[in-house]
Amino acid sequence: MSSDINFEPLTPVSFLRRSGRVHADRVAVIDEGRETTYAQLLERCERLAGGLNGLGVAPGDRVAVLLHNTQAMVEAHFGVPMAGAVLVSLNTRLSATEFAYILEHSGARILIHDVCFTSVVAEALAHLGSAAPRTVAAGGREADDEYEQLIASAPCHSVSITDERGMLALNYTSGTTGKPKGVMYHHRGAYLQSLAMALHTGLTSESRYLWTLPMFHCNGWCFPWAVTAVGGTHVCQRRVDPGEIWGALYTLGVTHMNAAPTVVSMLAWHKDAVPGKLQRKVRIGTGGAPPTPVLLARMGELGLDMMHLYGLTETFGPSLLCDWHPDWNGLPLDEQARLKARQGVGNVISETARVVDEHGQDVPADGRSMGEIALRGNNLMLGYYRDVEATRRACPDGWFRTGDVGVMYPDGYLELRDRSKDVIISGGENIASVEVEQAIATHPAVLESAVVAAPDEKWGEVPVAYVTLRDGETLSADVLAEHLRKRIARYKVPKYFVFGELPKTATGKIQKFALRSRARGQ
Amino acid sequence: MSSDINFEPLTPVSFLRRSGRVHADRVAVIDEGRETTYAQLLERCERLAGGLNGLGVAPGDRVAVLLHNTQAMVEAHFGVPMAGAVLVSLNTRLSATEFAYILEHSGARILIHDVCFTSVVAEALAHLGSAAPRTVAAGGREADDEYEQLIASAPCHSVSITDERGMLALNYTSGTTGKPKGVMYHHRGAYLQSLAMALHTGLTSESRYLWTLPMFHCNGWCFPWAVTAVGGTHVCQRRVDPGEIWGALYTLGVTHMNAAPTVVSMLAWHKDAVPGKLQRKVRIGTGGAPPTPVLLARMGELGLDMMHLYGLTETFGPSLLCDWHPDWNGLPLDEQARLKARQGVGNVISETARVVDEHGQDVPADGRSMGEIALRGNNLMLGYYRDVEATRRACPDGWFRTGDVGVMYPDGYLELRDRSKDVIISGGENIASVEVEQAIATHPAVLESAVVAAPDEKWGEVPVAYVTLRDGETLSADVLAEHLRKRIARYKVPKYFVFGELPKTATGKIQKFALRSRARGQ
Repeated sequence: MSSDINFEPLTPVSFLRRSGRVHADRVAVIDEGRETTYAQLLERCERLAGGLNGLGVAPGDRVAVLLHNTQAMVEAHFGVPMAGAVLVSLNTRLSATEFAYILEHSGARILIHDVCFTSVVAEALAHLGSAAPRTVAAGGREADDEYEQLIASAPCHSVSITDERGMLALNYTSGTTGKPKGVMYHHRGAYLQSLAMALHTGLTSESRYLWTLPMFHCNGWCFPWAVTAVGGTHVCQRRVDPGEIWGALYTLGVTHMNAAPTVVSMLAWHKDAVPGKLQRKVRIGTGGAPPTPVLLARMGELGLDMMHLYGLTETFGPSLLCDWHPDWNGLPLDEQARLKARQGVGNVISETARVVDEHGQDVPADGRSMGEIALRGNNLMLGYYRDVEATRRACPDGWFRTGDVGVMYPDGYLELRDRSKDVIISGGENIASVEVEQAIATHPAVLESAVVAAPDEKWGEVPVAYVTLRDGETLSADVLAEHLRKRIARYKVPKYFVFGELPKTATGKIQKFALRSRARGQ
Repeated sequence: MSSDINFEPLTPVSFLRRSGRVHADRVAVIDEGRETTYAQLLERCERLAGGLNGLGVAPGDRVAVLLHNTQAMVEAHFGVPMAGAVLVSLNTRLSATEFAYILEHSGARILIHDVCFTSVVAEALAHLGSAAPRTVAAGGREADDEYEQLIASAPCHSVSITDERGMLALNYTSGTTGKPKGVMYHHRGAYLQSLAMALHTGLTSESRYLWTLPMFHCNGWCFPWAVTAVGGTHVCQRRVDPGEIWGALYTLGVTHMNAAPTVVSMLAWHKDAVPGKLQRKVRIGTGGAPPTPVLLARMGELGLDMMHLYGLTETFGPSLLCDWHPDWNGLPLDEQARLKARQGVGNVISETARVVDEHGQDVPADGRSMGEIALRGNNLMLGYYRDVEATRRACPDGWFRTGDVGVMYPDGYLELRDRSKDVIISGGENIASVEVEQAIATHPAVLESAVVAAPDEKWGEVPVAYVTLRDGETLSADVLAEHLRKRIARYKVPKYFVFGELPKTATGKIQKFALRSRARGQ
């Protein structure tokens, strides 16, 4: 009997139910200048659920979306689970073949897509034949917008979530190697991760969150739910254009955003970046490449407060963050950069992260001994969809193996050394490519770089560096090599330097696999 | 297998495990000038658990504490559950007989008490005979402090919490009528409520929380856990003395506190309250009596930001809060006070609160129809300890009945009208005593008041007001009655006014039952 009053399954859908009521008249979403209140958003999501229900979507069914960072994408994060269904967000940069694979593997019944993707969707569906999902196009002209018609004509509908560990979303990893794997998210994990994100980044009902990070990427690190939980405003941003982002920061009162390191660099050195012009501090979460002292100083003068995060699709986004100690603010900037380069510690709802050897034993917490980063806790996936074997391999002993190599410092902060596959073994010595990249980043002419292994007769492997310079800068390989020899061991200095653009994934991750195959050809 | 990586029972104990590592060197507790870091706090709590274990405390056993707001009291909130035991916090203002009742009813094996309570404890234990718990005195002289000796001599110990819905604490209601009832708290509820409190009040690792609200009261609304979750600092305050509180606000960088309305009033009009002197804004959570426009204005100029909360022992403290809309800041002050007087809406982890009639149906959300406030959700008790019948009565249909009467506004915000038993029925008309109290509070000479029913030949009942004036103010019953007749219906104007101090509970709640019995005698 007591269970009647004191147990309610945890689900992020509850955040919209609350904000639709509590923050009814506040702006929930701004998309291309159009404002939608929380009361309207709640109603639209309930109608979306009703519409999906009318199209035959039953609890447990998968509903795929191929959408930019639009209002429809925010709505899918609530409307789909309100129909009891599982949200499958597709990476907008994939090919028709890849879309077809994911649609088939997930068994999606419905695909909601931006009208701009109509032709690639048709191509993908042609692969599927009778297994093709029914499509609903969004963002068309007002008169024939299928998505708007679905919402306008449907009744409100919202199922009760009864199992907090039931499936909420299915996110396919970008698959730099092999076929994409479907990472199963559960309601409980998304709920708790959302609260953690809101708490650590200081979201409130006065926050305005700019959507630069794609929502298809780990469900936008759970921010569609986190921002809604506090009644903040989602500011949609369809393209990652630094000029447009600066426009939004200056004119729309943005307080928070998340972005790939590349985007952060582009912002920092963009012509519209004017120190002192921002009305209020903007907190930027970023993960992947650690910030350099130069970048940190630049961010500070621009009023951008950077937070270093780490996570994977399997962990609902940021499982770790470099939880900043206020007294570190008094340190010299390069010392701050060194501390901020660390991925840090589990967030408030994560379990303590570990760095383990090949036997699953913790390596010494000395900041030098490398091991694999292992995670567990309520913000870990249920497993890989329809792939028990891959799930088993990823979690051999109750701890999820990230595939990332790191070290543990005596203070319990962890630092990524490398993706396992990115370790370069040269003459029997391990070289962490990230260490070389960080050394390269200390040169003021460098915008970003990636270091990978190239095969070598004598040493087995040698490091090769791909380097992008800042606009208007020039730099020779010799000068850069000399710069590095002052900073890292000689064997770690790349044998070749290639200057130019770096290949990237949709989320701005550098595609090292592409560089490795280039390096093999050299 | 997937459960290995993605399910961890929710328990607030995890917050200290994390902060002991992440915020190891930060100050966790300041008590009488002595600072303790998070690493030290974690170790002390683990030793406390080890010490309790050594005294024979087994998982599920109850450990009672009779402590002021001291470091030992913070430690009990972690050390006791680390021993797998249930924390029973005793209200320090109770009598020996009442202590004996609770100790016997809870079956506590151990009682940790401040040394200042030694004689009342001896008296209580005399009632219990062989069932008396073993005592551990804290806060004695260094050489013979039993509590410190227990900690110093014990090994570290910490059990795993395996059932998140298991019992964490047992809090006896103050029992204005009948015997105290033991409210059973669970780990999951305390964990979620802590996150909600941290998020809504904006706690961060830079926060300094002043302990004016007694920790024995609903486990300090879960703030022992919430402040620890973010790595903030607990500033212990043993006595509720406005001069001492102002001293702490001015010199210790306090950012947050919770306090009864009486304490807030005392602070606002204290001689040390100097507008503009506070270095940073202090957020004060308060519940019970709604703030008047005069008080709100005064708080504003003092740099005190008030948050109106509502909850009961049964709800882990604040289940509702007056979630403030930024655009309300532009309204005239009396309008703001009217909005802030509302208890508001469920916090981010609460279910939507309801106002129901005697059949359990929602009353119209018109701001006028009265009903009983009904709650449910993860921040509700497991039930009353060893009292199935009382639990059943309190939750007749899956919704916990608070015993409080309120109205629901069209915007979903709820306002307390009265404790059920405080409704005055005069000539067949219901009078909500709080409405009369609010009208009395508009007179500038009034500090606070309480209105109760007195029996009356003609009308059945009539309202009687007990009024405390501000220092140095004078006011006659006639002048006050005239003031009220301009503001409320004539039948609501009290028939008698009694000027003087009001009787209060330990937590600053006005003891209306005492006033009612006085009123009956008049």
